[in-house]
Amino acid sequence: MSKKPRTAIAPTREENFPEWYQQVIKAADLAENSPVRGCMTVKPNGWAIWENMVNIFDPWLKDYGVQNCSFPLLIPVSFLSKEAEHVEGFAKECAVVTHHRLEADPENGGLRPAPSAELEEPYVVRPTSETIIGDAMSRWIQSYRDLPLQLNQWASVLRWEMRTRMFLRTSEFFWHEGHNAFADHDGAKADCLHILDLYEKFFTEVLALDGFKGVKTEDERFPGANETYSFECMMQDGKGIQACTTHDLGTNFAKTFDIKYQTKDGGEALCHTTSWAFTTRMIGALIMIHGDDDGMIMPPRIAPQQVVILPMAKGGNDDEIMAFSENVASELKAKGIKVKVDKRDMRTPDKMWDAIKKGIPLRVEIGGREMDAGEVTSVRRDIGRDSKKTVSVDQFVNDAQGILDQIHNDMLAKSRKFLSDNVVEGSSAADVEAFFSTEKIGFVKVPVDVLKDETLEATMKTYSLGARNMPFADDGQKVLIGKAY
Amino acid sequence: MSKKPRTAIAPTREENFPEWYQQVIKAADLAENSPVRGCMTVKPNGWAIWENMVNIFDPWLKDYGVQNCSFPLLIPVSFLSKEAEHVEGFAKECAVVTHHRLEADPENGGLRPAPSAELEEPYVVRPTSETIIGDAMSRWIQSYRDLPLQLNQWASVLRWEMRTRMFLRTSEFFWHEGHNAFADHDGAKADCLHILDLYEKFFTEVLALDGFKGVKTEDERFPGANETYSFECMMQDGKGIQACTTHDLGTNFAKTFDIKYQTKDGGEALCHTTSWAFTTRMIGALIMIHGDDDGMIMPPRIAPQQVVILPMAKGGNDDEIMAFSENVASELKAKGIKVKVDKRDMRTPDKMWDAIKKGIPLRVEIGGREMDAGEVTSVRRDIGRDSKKTVSVDQFVNDAQGILDQIHNDMLAKSRKFLSDNVVEGSSAADVEAFFSTEKIGFVKVPVDVLKDETLEATMKTYSLGARNMPFADDGQKVLIGKAY
Repeated sequence: MSKKPRTAIAPTREENFPEWYQQVIKAADLAENSPVRGCMTVKPNGWAIWENMVNIFDPWLKDYGVQNCSFPLLIPVSFLSKEAEHVEGFAKECAVVTHHRLEADPENGGLRPAPSAELEEPYVVRPTSETIIGDAMSRWIQSYRDLPLQLNQWASVLRWEMRTRMFLRTSEFFWHEGHNAFADHDGAKADCLHILDLYEKFFTEVLALDGFKGVKTEDERFPGANETYSFECMMQDGKGIQACTTHDLGTNFAKTFDIKYQTKDGGEALCHTTSWAFTTRMIGALIMIHGDDDGMIMPPRIAPQQVVILPMAKGGNDDEIMAFSENVASELKAKGIKVKVDKRDMRTPDKMWDAIKKGIPLRVEIGGREMDAGEVTSVRRDIGRDSKKTVSVDQFVNDAQGILDQIHNDMLAKSRKFLSDNVVEGSSAADVEAFFSTEKIGFVKVPVDVLKDETLEATMKTYSLGARNMPFADDGQKVLIGKAY
Repeated sequence: MSKKPRTAIAPTREENFPEWYQQVIKAADLAENSPVRGCMTVKPNGWAIWENMVNIFDPWLKDYGVQNCSFPLLIPVSFLSKEAEHVEGFAKECAVVTHHRLEADPENGGLRPAPSAELEEPYVVRPTSETIIGDAMSRWIQSYRDLPLQLNQWASVLRWEMRTRMFLRTSEFFWHEGHNAFADHDGAKADCLHILDLYEKFFTEVLALDGFKGVKTEDERFPGANETYSFECMMQDGKGIQACTTHDLGTNFAKTFDIKYQTKDGGEALCHTTSWAFTTRMIGALIMIHGDDDGMIMPPRIAPQQVVILPMAKGGNDDEIMAFSENVASELKAKGIKVKVDKRDMRTPDKMWDAIKKGIPLRVEIGGREMDAGEVTSVRRDIGRDSKKTVSVDQFVNDAQGILDQIHNDMLAKSRKFLSDNVVEGSSAADVEAFFSTEKIGFVKVPVDVLKDETLEATMKTYSLGARNMPFADDGQKVLIGKAY
């Protein structure tokens, strides 16, 4: 055991939080930077988390009445220009397609865009799809009978980012984008709030992440929205992250794209539209909120693998221990648990540390002693060796789902406690200054009127602070101020 | 009934097959052309087919050991240049990203690519990902222990197409692309054949499509492959369609991208790689092979909706019939059948024709008479009113899955018969000329040596023919000649 490092991840969170984050991604084999500027390659262990997010959340949307569909990857530049605020928000950071063919470059060798294949109108790779979906809605919606129209697509989008960080901010990222149209504002507002509730349920009940549900300040709204709602989480370094947003777009996009319908009494009215999303940045949030100095800690309900079995043979009994381990795995699978026996050609301590760094919620060790006694030894990743327990196979198989649920509950409770420990109530701009000038971790919550205090702006600038949102829990009367990713 | 048109789709297949195809897509509400040149918008009823394809096929890949992951949407142009044959095949038809920002256009208004934001090296939107995945494999594979490495991504790709046809050939299309690496050629070849078998199983057992499994001629190989295998189907107009391909890339990409591994005995060797795919064009194939003059006929195992229930109220008993219908739907759902009651505010005949045009496999009509007798009347879409049957609710609920399976079997048998009816054996270039000069529907199968006959080339050109593949069933000794999409 002398070779065991003090922590599996160097540096530790305290030593250098951003670098610790990068090292966890590497150690857990989640993703890597790609040869394309600002874009990542998501490796199988990372992509499996996103697939689980899709597979769990998508049916909730369908139950609510949302239909999936697919709009083009490219958007005509003229579409972006149509909505004045929207273009301000998105035109500045797009991948612009200007040619449709490459040709041999006679001067420098290699390939170049063929001058003869320049497009009359350039396209951008979609940074978001309000415009092209708005255009479709104007054709698909004719009558009140066509409403509500509830559409969603799972896709990647691209925004040219100067400073990137894997998962949290990359040029290309994955998301789902929902776009709904309603006959009136009541419908649109209720939609924003319902989807926000679904997000909260997903973050808390599946990802074990607590946060603040609320409404954004005017400055922080989506470009083109009348109101933006969000769920805001806090990382272990005290910075916030916007986990999702739902936007009440009013009739802004309906006016621009002519999304009208015939009312029951034969009149004509504009639709009220909404849009909403969460993205692959939630994988980054999982790491930054749940991880420790030994690596990732996967919340059990989103974990690609919930249980890993390590057969610990000591010469001679390899086959029996492997068969015994496979048998335990089969019984767990039959209970719906995602389990694998680690059969790789590697030393057992290396396998153990690999499981720890990847954050597999429950590790099972099976050696000769366990096999002979018909037992297994299990260790919870979130607690570590203090949770080590040896019980009979039958008992473990029966208890495993309960243990995974307990891990989930404990992780959520820890996330809850971290939030309540790190939000400080204040009453003035001076309180905000006082808090952040001592490099404290967390948010300061102040009455919304404090936003009007001119001295606050300088403080916000000095410490790179932003208004996270105005929590519903405070009836929108207070605003959370903090740093953010 | 006097208002009923002779057929629901005009023109009929015989009158104008390509236009019939477009009209079926419209009538079945599957997709529409988008404002982006050559790209389609896939509507909910079309996207649900693709989602079903993904959800059924993806677990088969995982069982085989393939891991999903995600590579960037953009590919550096220099990557494309690396593999000589590959660049020939793909460089000509790409969306080229040259700028990363838009700005207000002072001359013409609107937005233009910002001259200050021109990229040093342009990117293309991926036409396929061999190059960027090859680059990653060179880092991810170090030792024989890392092999085989089996990767897959579900994504869209973009190839600038001049003449497009929805689903069959669009600039952007959806696919999965598998990329596997093996220690030797035996592994790579076995992989190509195994994946081809999975595709055949999927096409026949899920899509009810028969076809020819075989190997491509040299001219028809993927750019950069040593061997390309395919499954070739035939449309009702006698044209072929390549339903999928698997490519044995030998060590070509491994050489270019330096994909090497340390062998067991400490030496160094190049990997043998493969790639393989099927795409959204299979939705087009479903329409062109199974459809009739009344619209789409969905094979039951891929149908977004397998049963539709039409409540036929006649004043007064609306609520009872609706409740009765919902009850039948619940019982079918409990059996795992995808069923919906059509509750829309529409005339019953319109609902019936909508179900026919969409090709919902089984239509159930419930009127007052049925309700009073505890019965339902069902009609198979593939057979039509000759299959009309009234049975007790219990019997129908018990039989429904069996009826859906029977529909599948009958559709597959029909597809089989169509193929065997429309492949003619020939022995010479003159036989090929004789067949196509009379505008017959189908393929001619000739010995592979006929490909060397110089007169064949002129015939192929005259009638736009191609070598489909050399079927395994003939031990690769014969080649199928035909038109194709």
